[in-house]
Amino acid sequence: MSAGEGLLARVVRILEVFGPEEPALRVTAIARRTGLHVATVSRLVEEMCRHGLLSRDDDRRVRIGVRLWELASRTSPTLGLREAAMPFLEGLHDVVGHHTQLGVLEGREALFVERLSVPGSVVNITRIAGRLPLHASSAGLVLLAWAAPELREQILAGPLERYTPHTPGTPGRLRAVLADVRRAGFALCPGYIDERATGIAAPVRDATGRVVAALGVVIPNDQHARTQVPAVRAAARGASRALGAHPR
Amino acid sequence: MSAGEGLLARVVRILEVFGPEEPALRVTAIARRTGLHVATVSRLVEEMCRHGLLSRDDDRRVRIGVRLWELASRTSPTLGLREAAMPFLEGLHDVVGHHTQLGVLEGREALFVERLSVPGSVVNITRIAGRLPLHASSAGLVLLAWAAPELREQILAGPLERYTPHTPGTPGRLRAVLADVRRAGFALCPGYIDERATGIAAPVRDATGRVVAALGVVIPNDQHARTQVPAVRAAARGASRALGAHPR
Repeated sequence: MSAGEGLLARVVRILEVFGPEEPALRVTAIARRTGLHVATVSRLVEEMCRHGLLSRDDDRRVRIGVRLWELASRTSPTLGLREAAMPFLEGLHDVVGHHTQLGVLEGREALFVERLSVPGSVVNITRIAGRLPLHASSAGLVLLAWAAPELREQILAGPLERYTPHTPGTPGRLRAVLADVRRAGFALCPGYIDERATGIAAPVRDATGRVVAALGVVIPNDQHARTQVPAVRAAARGASRALGAHPR
Repeated sequence: MSAGEGLLARVVRILEVFGPEEPALRVTAIARRTGLHVATVSRLVEEMCRHGLLSRDDDRRVRIGVRLWELASRTSPTLGLREAAMPFLEGLHDVVGHHTQLGVLEGREALFVERLSVPGSVVNITRIAGRLPLHASSAGLVLLAWAAPELREQILAGPLERYTPHTPGTPGRLRAVLADVRRAGFALCPGYIDERATGIAAPVRDATGRVVAALGVVIPNDQHARTQVPAVRAAARGASRALGAHPR
């Protein structure tokens, strides 16, 4: 590994320690979490602050810099998708309430790139730029149902963490759920991650017909949940049309 | 400059060449725009792709990576602000239509961190993660009106680009406009950037009373524009309350 390669790896390791629960950290905490020397972290943080990748509070705590957010967001690979989907997310949100969200496949998880919520909604563990496992979330199941067969086999090979007794926790059950999702054209997941919540998601396709995202809602887990399926499917179809997809 | 410092500067220079008009570029184009050697760019792009900071299309064009977007967004310094302001942006958007947006001060410009639009709205040159000058945009004037006096003097010292005959293009005119904004509690900017559009913006304050953002709309430049001022002010006050600001 060259010195240069080592540096970039260390920069990424520093960026990775910041999370929603810990948006601001002191240099010593960053050193502890990255396993890097305090002196190394101190020097790199200084340099990253100079370029706007990080910024420092008045109390010397370090955060992700606005400049980094700007560089990553102004040409974000998901910006076109988010802009096309937003009116449909908003319309769905107006009618269904609770949480409306848009997820994409990133690695072996669903990454949420937009979310609209109202205070007091049912529990929802996603957040913007948050992730959920493919086998347990409605968005993840939609993305997995239309993913490359190799990824599907990798996920089926486990481990398949059970969040509740309803989570598809065996390869056989997951395979059956995925077949249902493909046949029905949507995922309905009562209590898969939290007993109190039902996730519903449907695929968003681009002009080539490829599934590029899952659009859905998280609502209370009760007997009315299923009645929202048509609204979710219509919004996902609308977003697909906005991306140039043809009906089929 | 140490080798490490030089590398990070080059990485940032590469990230900076990607813009909304050019989200995907070949290595040769990146080299041309950064002034770096093709071999250097080729090696760095390779390394940045390995860490997910960049990604490569099937046709070898390079883009900002989803992983970089995720790292920058999940603890974005503006995420709390955006989440607090979103319901107010949405409510305003439902009633006023056209464009609703949220801008923060970044360097010597207004950086837009959220925008809701409907197709067919009046012209609006902002976009998410786009920037506008402080002296010419309604959001910029609000941010400048409550900015540190040093920044205000720097901007007043010019240059003050004129986009239309209505842009505040002299220090005297700009000083008067800023005094009006502070006194009135909002900025109303008919035709400052484009003759066809009026920007309206009002300050969003945090729990310490500091102005942290400007919330506003861009609507057609006609005799009805002024009637939207109370809706914009109410939304900005609401977002401030959501951030813990006290009325005053």
